[in-house]
Order: sequence, then structure tokens, then C-alpha cells
Amino acid sequence: MRWKLTLEYDGTPFVGWQRQEPGLLSIQQALEDAITAFSGETAAVTTAGRTDAGVHAEGQVVHVDLTRDWSVKTVRDAINAHLRPLPVAVLHAEPVSDEFNARFSAKLRAYRYTILNRRAPPTLEANRIWHVVPKMDIEPMREGAAHLLGHHDFSSFRAADCQAKSPMRTLDKLEITRDGDRIIFIAEARSFLHHQVRNMVGTLSMVGKGRWTPDDVKQALEACDRAAAGPTAPPEGLVLTRVGY
Amino acid sequence: MRWKLTLEYDGTPFVGWQRQEPGLLSIQQALEDAITAFSGETAAVTTAGRTDAGVHAEGQVVHVDLTRDWSVKTVRDAINAHLRPLPVAVLHAEPVSDEFNARFSAKLRAYRYTILNRRAPPTLEANRIWHVVPKMDIEPMREGAAHLLGHHDFSSFRAADCQAKSPMRTLDKLEITRDGDRIIFIAEARSFLHHQVRNMVGTLSMVGKGRWTPDDVKQALEACDRAAAGPTAPPEGLVLTRVGY
Repeated sequence: MRWKLTLEYDGTPFVGWQRQEPGLLSIQQALEDAITAFSGETAAVTTAGRTDAGVHAEGQVVHVDLTRDWSVKTVRDAINAHLRPLPVAVLHAEPVSDEFNARFSAKLRAYRYTILNRRAPPTLEANRIWHVVPKMDIEPMREGAAHLLGHHDFSSFRAADCQAKSPMRTLDKLEITRDGDRIIFIAEARSFLHHQVRNMVGTLSMVGKGRWTPDDVKQALEACDRAAAGPTAPPEGLVLTRVGY
Repeated sequence: MRWKLTLEYDGTPFVGWQRQEPGLLSIQQALEDAITAFSGETAAVTTAGRTDAGVHAEGQVVHVDLTRDWSVKTVRDAINAHLRPLPVAVLHAEPVSDEFNARFSAKLRAYRYTILNRRAPPTLEANRIWHVVPKMDIEPMREGAAHLLGHHDFSSFRAADCQAKSPMRTLDKLEITRDGDRIIFIAEARSFLHHQVRNMVGTLSMVGKGRWTPDDVKQALEACDRAAAGPTAPPEGLVLTRVGY
């Protein structure tokens, strides 16, 4: 039976989603080990999207095939019991058809990126936000973000090690709002290139600080060259909030 | 010169606000040490309210007297520099008259308490919320909370070690809202007894789980006996959000 699992995790103590060499703790390994510990089966999970070291999730989705029949409650609670005390939890477990694929069936990925824009360092939100001291103005950032919406070659916002075949992506949403000292970005697309959200946020932060104009974002996009865009925002501000199917 | 400092902190790694024996890290000690380190003066801070071990603050207020003249920027940034890497930060520093007293001038204390009401354990909000698994209903909790509003003898909601002279307090607000899996309590009063918010939340949680009726809260209040009320909710869900003057 194929299972769809919806996960929440704090990415801080992990080397990222993907299993790496022994001794380096990945979320994938923690999850696969917990599944094996409860079911006795060797489990290989497929994820909707690999997250980098330090990146969080409130709604990551994976699928995994298990031979034996289990109840929803057992799958969810037993995996959670074996994940303790690691900060990874199965929010929902759902049996799905064999045609469901966490990666290839996904029609939407949604991310939230949060900046703490104030003088004082973060305390309660340490490892959850990007601390930016210079006062940022969100209006020009919104103007800059508008240039990124739609179907484009996003080579300027793509990590050097990105394994996607094409740099073409369709950005459906890039909303920027302010809530007190917090600046919140919501980005949605069918899929993103590696580091795309963090590179868009890093580039827009230059606009927010007044060092770039909104039009510079358009020129950076059109250059189709990573060197033409701004810095990569740090991972801790990023959360994969939802995967839609 | 007297300074009013507004603080944010993560209470998790501390034994609480109050300085205790050497070797136990209190927020008071961390702050006083940072003030001394930057100013060279022995500092004694007075707080609007001592928070217990594990309780957080987004708007704690203290006052401290410094002999030398400093700029607002220096006081705020220098204390923050010396507090690193502890999760305590000065959000605002403001010179005030000698008549200002962080404790006695306070006219309002506001707290937020958050419950995570779901099956899966917390990950991103670990140490920030109280995890309650049984499904809770907020309507009867609101009915129960209504009995606590106003001027009452709160002996039933008072810690055994509470040092207040009188158990009489006026509860101005006790709002309960739901946001997805989160149940949020907002409590406001001129002052609270020791553990009062946590004891009110713990008692109302019994109502939320259907084990108590809203009227049982009224009877617990009228008993004027700690044993008549419900359990003390754990500290990690509590945040001192604001002190009004």
C-alpha cells in the first residue's frame, strides 16, 4: 500500500532533506529509520521537494510504500513515536493509489520566507527568520517582485548545482506583506529551481534597502546569469508551507 | 539617569527571571551582567514582573539607573552586544524620569498562552506551546472564562509560594480564540498573582476537554482554595506580551 505523509519539521539540526554520508543527520534518514523501526520494512520515501540544511516545513509531503496493512492512526502515531526527540512530525497519514507520486503529482509548492527587520537580534524566532537591520521599504520590493511573476527563464535565480533540466519556471505568486517588524514573502509555483525562493528574496532585499531599484530586478531576470542577481537569503527564514495535488 | 528597557526573551534556557544561586542562569543576571560589562557600573534592574523558568517575553519592561550619560543607541546596542549569544534582547531603550518604576508604575500586564491541540507533537514550536492531544472545544472554555472576569478573590488560582499581600485581583480580559490547531488565550490585568494565568489556562483546559462544565470554573473560583481549581498549565506556552504604563 502507498502512503501519503504530510510532515512538519524544524530544519535547524539537519543537513537538509537528503540522505548523505553516515553520521550526517538528514530528515530523509530520520524518517526512513522511524518507518523501518515501526514496520520492520526497509522504507524508501519520495519527497515533493528536497529542502536545504536549515530550511523548515509545515506541509512537506512524501510517499512511501509499505507491504503490510496498517491503520492511519498506527502509521502516523508509530512513526511519530520513533521520530522522538527529533523535531520532525507526521501531521497526516493517508493511503493513496499507486498512481500518486509525491514529487511528480504535485501541482503547487508554496513557501513562506520571513525577515525580522529591526535593530535587536532575534530571540524567540532565532533560526526561524532572517535578521536584517537596515530599515526596508516593502513598496519597491513589491514593484520588483511583479517583474518576476509569470513564465520566465529563472537562470539568474538558480543555484549553480541545480539539477533541473530547464531554467524555465512559472511563478504564480510572490506576495510581500509587513506585520510589525516582520516582512513576509509568500511564493507559489508548480515547481521552483534550487535556491530560487532564497535568491528572489535576497535580490528583493537589495531593493528593500534602497540599493537596487525595482527595475534592476527586471534587468537581473533578463540577464539569465546568476551573477546578475542579488545574494542568496539564508535558509533559516524559509518554510515549505504546502504542496498541492 | 533612569532607563526604561523593553525586552524580548526565550525563557527556555533560564531558571526564570530572578537571580538565584551562582551557576544558575537567570534572565536578571544575564541582563545585569551585560549592563555592567558595557557601562562599568554595578546595575540593579527592577522588573515589571518576574517570569518563571521557561516562560517567554515579547514585551517585558525593566528600569535601571546609570550614572553616566549614554545615547539611546549605545544603551540598546551595547547591552545587546554583551547579551550575545543568550536569547535575550533589548528592543527599546528610553530615558525616563526618576518617578518611573517598572514594577509600581505598571497599569496593565498582558499575557498570551498558546495550546497546540493536535495529535502530532510540536516541532517548529517546541518550547513555545503546550501540546494537548485530546480535541478541545473553545465555546465552553469561553463560558468558563467569563466567570473569571472582574474583581475576585483568586486564591484558587494562586501558587502556594505567591508573595502578594492580597489574593484580590481584577481580570480585565480573558479572550480565547482558535487559529487552526492553535488555541490562544489573551489575559490582561493590572497585575496577576503568581501562576494565575497558567492556573486559569490549566483549569479551562479541563473544560475544553469536556471533563469540567463552565459552571465548575465558577465554583472553583468561589471555593477560594487552590485545590478546587485545575492543574497548572506548563510554562512554555506563556509569553508576557506587553506592560502598559
